[in-house]
Amino acid sequence: MEKVKARTLSGFMELLPRQQVQFERVKGVLEESYRRYGFTPLDTPIIEASEVLLAKAGGETEKQIYRFQKGDNDLSLRFDLTVPLAKYVALHQNELSFPFRRYQIGKVYRGERAQRGRFREFYQADIDIIGDGSLDIINEAEIPAVIYQTFTALGLKRFQIRVNNRKLLNGFYAMLGWEHKAGDIMRTVDKLPKIGAEKVGLMLCDDLGLDQDAAGDIVSFMAIKGSNAEVLAALEAYRGRNQVFDQGLSELTTVVKYLGDFGVPEENFAVDLTIARGLDYYTGTVYETFMTDHPEIGAICSGGRYDNLAEYYTEKQLPGVGVAIGLTRLFYVLQEQRMLNEALPTAPCDVLVLPMTEDLSPAIAFATACRSGGVRAQLYTEPKKFKAKMNYADKIGVPFVAFLGEDEVANSVVSLKDMVSGGQEKVALSEALGWLKERLAKRNQGPVIQG
Amino acid sequence: MEKVKARTLSGFMELLPRQQVQFERVKGVLEESYRRYGFTPLDTPIIEASEVLLAKAGGETEKQIYRFQKGDNDLSLRFDLTVPLAKYVALHQNELSFPFRRYQIGKVYRGERAQRGRFREFYQADIDIIGDGSLDIINEAEIPAVIYQTFTALGLKRFQIRVNNRKLLNGFYAMLGWEHKAGDIMRTVDKLPKIGAEKVGLMLCDDLGLDQDAAGDIVSFMAIKGSNAEVLAALEAYRGRNQVFDQGLSELTTVVKYLGDFGVPEENFAVDLTIARGLDYYTGTVYETFMTDHPEIGAICSGGRYDNLAEYYTEKQLPGVGVAIGLTRLFYVLQEQRMLNEALPTAPCDVLVLPMTEDLSPAIAFATACRSGGVRAQLYTEPKKFKAKMNYADKIGVPFVAFLGEDEVANSVVSLKDMVSGGQEKVALSEALGWLKERLAKRNQGPVIQG
Repeated sequence: MEKVKARTLSGFMELLPRQQVQFERVKGVLEESYRRYGFTPLDTPIIEASEVLLAKAGGETEKQIYRFQKGDNDLSLRFDLTVPLAKYVALHQNELSFPFRRYQIGKVYRGERAQRGRFREFYQADIDIIGDGSLDIINEAEIPAVIYQTFTALGLKRFQIRVNNRKLLNGFYAMLGWEHKAGDIMRTVDKLPKIGAEKVGLMLCDDLGLDQDAAGDIVSFMAIKGSNAEVLAALEAYRGRNQVFDQGLSELTTVVKYLGDFGVPEENFAVDLTIARGLDYYTGTVYETFMTDHPEIGAICSGGRYDNLAEYYTEKQLPGVGVAIGLTRLFYVLQEQRMLNEALPTAPCDVLVLPMTEDLSPAIAFATACRSGGVRAQLYTEPKKFKAKMNYADKIGVPFVAFLGEDEVANSVVSLKDMVSGGQEKVALSEALGWLKERLAKRNQGPVIQG
Repeated sequence: MEKVKARTLSGFMELLPRQQVQFERVKGVLEESYRRYGFTPLDTPIIEASEVLLAKAGGETEKQIYRFQKGDNDLSLRFDLTVPLAKYVALHQNELSFPFRRYQIGKVYRGERAQRGRFREFYQADIDIIGDGSLDIINEAEIPAVIYQTFTALGLKRFQIRVNNRKLLNGFYAMLGWEHKAGDIMRTVDKLPKIGAEKVGLMLCDDLGLDQDAAGDIVSFMAIKGSNAEVLAALEAYRGRNQVFDQGLSELTTVVKYLGDFGVPEENFAVDLTIARGLDYYTGTVYETFMTDHPEIGAICSGGRYDNLAEYYTEKQLPGVGVAIGLTRLFYVLQEQRMLNEALPTAPCDVLVLPMTEDLSPAIAFATACRSGGVRAQLYTEPKKFKAKMNYADKIGVPFVAFLGEDEVANSVVSLKDMVSGGQEKVALSEALGWLKERLAKRNQGPVIQG
């Protein structure tokens, strides 16, 4: 038979079993963390009607969409989880209770140019809190608190959630009389880390036509640094000149206070006036989270407050706040940086059961007892040489091997071999489950991420 | 602004939060059960190159495929999880250890005619064990044992796994001299439950051209009923006339023996000679699982043994055995039949924390303590009337509400209200977590499915 070459499309992450287990572990921590904060799981279709999915899209995004015809239907694959959420909330607004808190971890699709570390199919892990007409400011502090707990639960230590407020920025530009260019100014200021203050100042004048005073004021404003208390104190000096600014400053001050109440340490969050988030969509607090030792990676989690989630679908005002973690990209980076804790087992099972007798019933009974007790067991019954069996155990990285020979069966014991230490002992069948569980609990301790 | 009508495509299941939690619970039981048996998680792309995905497909399947062009690429959405597994194993054959045991729970796509209870996007939940060149017969018993444990863990009691063997059937048709029509005969015999023995006998003669003796032999063979021991004993009478039949009978006898060793009760599995599974692909044991009280639903889980998983991609012989549960369809049926245990909580959180003081820090501290202790907590801080807050608690179905007023804060207690009994008591802050966990454990007891 003529063969078709087996291949996986470029830009699509497909992991080997060991890596897949590591990925599931990261995903599991995110899920559990989101759940602890009272977010309900959501699972919307991957395919939507193009007219619905692209109600808002345009430009760059639209070009990347996987869009196609099936019968009479113009269909598209979702490119994020926010638009499907907007559709969902608009569609089910009368059946939902607000505030509506949901998480969704799912695949999204963007036909980007293929390059290393960029994916066309990737997981996003989103949380959002949606209000009905209004939403209390405390939610704008709780969202980064969830993110702090999530990364901490993963074992990540050196990260920083940078917080800013769009009203503060818009109010500041209004103070200078340049609110009509706020968008362009933000995009220029965005280049600060890359090109420095001097060049940004020049661009503000030359490209956007700002006067030197305004450009100078912006550059000085962006240069406000220090502890959160110091930055907030410096910002107080601008108070009283613009209402929108004042409101933004009050919000930012409240968010910083609550972040402390939520137990987020100062070293993990910072007011950063240069954070703007490109999208017009955001209207209040905005966030970007960076790995302290890997700024080159860019933000690993970002989001913010918006006033109108679903304005393309409904008259109902649905303000909200949310963030998204680019899970596939994060996992890729953790692999590349060798930050995944390799000490955690990645085998498909906890114990590999090797029957050494003709009659397999004792081995089957032992495996069944393990499984009932929550220990993942695999029976290995292929007619191979002993060495081949142990090679298999080694290759899958199983923590323990159980031997059941004539001798063991006669004495109601099982020989248990620790594949890390190499030690082996005979354990009474009645005690084997406890023996395994105690050791497995230790073996499975430790964070998913090291560093 | 002109609005786009929010809608979800027909044939795509999108659940409300409460149902989604029930769905996640069913999915979670499947996952945990598969893991206990040493299956490793796999996650392959939803999009594949059409040439790879459709290497084998044809006819009805091909028409249902979501296939489209993106740039220069001819792409298709996967329509099952078996073809992606075949591709994966062929592609990574040198990096995998055999037997390779994997589970995958993922969405697949078939552009079927839309009708109630039929889905175009649906989850399949597959397990397979793949050998390298050979695979021990015990695996053909372990797979239905996993299915038994999985349905039992869900709480399903009245189901039956029907087992047969393709060699037995092929050998039997060869005995009669009609092996060249084995496929057609199987498809006709498949109609037995619907049209009865008499009509099947007529069709075998009239449509397929069998002589009356052969047709009679087939109808009598298919009529063999009784306990598994009785059916196997009746089959022994045919032994010695055809080698393939004899091998099939030995395999079936072995599988029945091992199923007992695996602890599967007789009432949950039965040798059923009418089970054939349409696909040529299967070569040994085949399975179909039915809900005893709802035969009209058809098989809720099916699969079998095959000799060549990936023959379209590789020369390597990869025999295996596996089954698939149509998870979305199963969930739909469980909903329709009102079999989901409605006593299990479906709220996004275990406790809704209502601060009754200006200063939110005590409420935040309490919510944080709950979350650290594994209790899912939601802070409710919207400036609403008390009644509106309690309405919200009711609507989301939260098991407990925590009140923190001046009085509680001053006395280091929290008022905890049981939303089911309506009872309320003041509990010391230091004991509140234990109080909640004890009651939540009880509230979360019980199977996912009732009946």
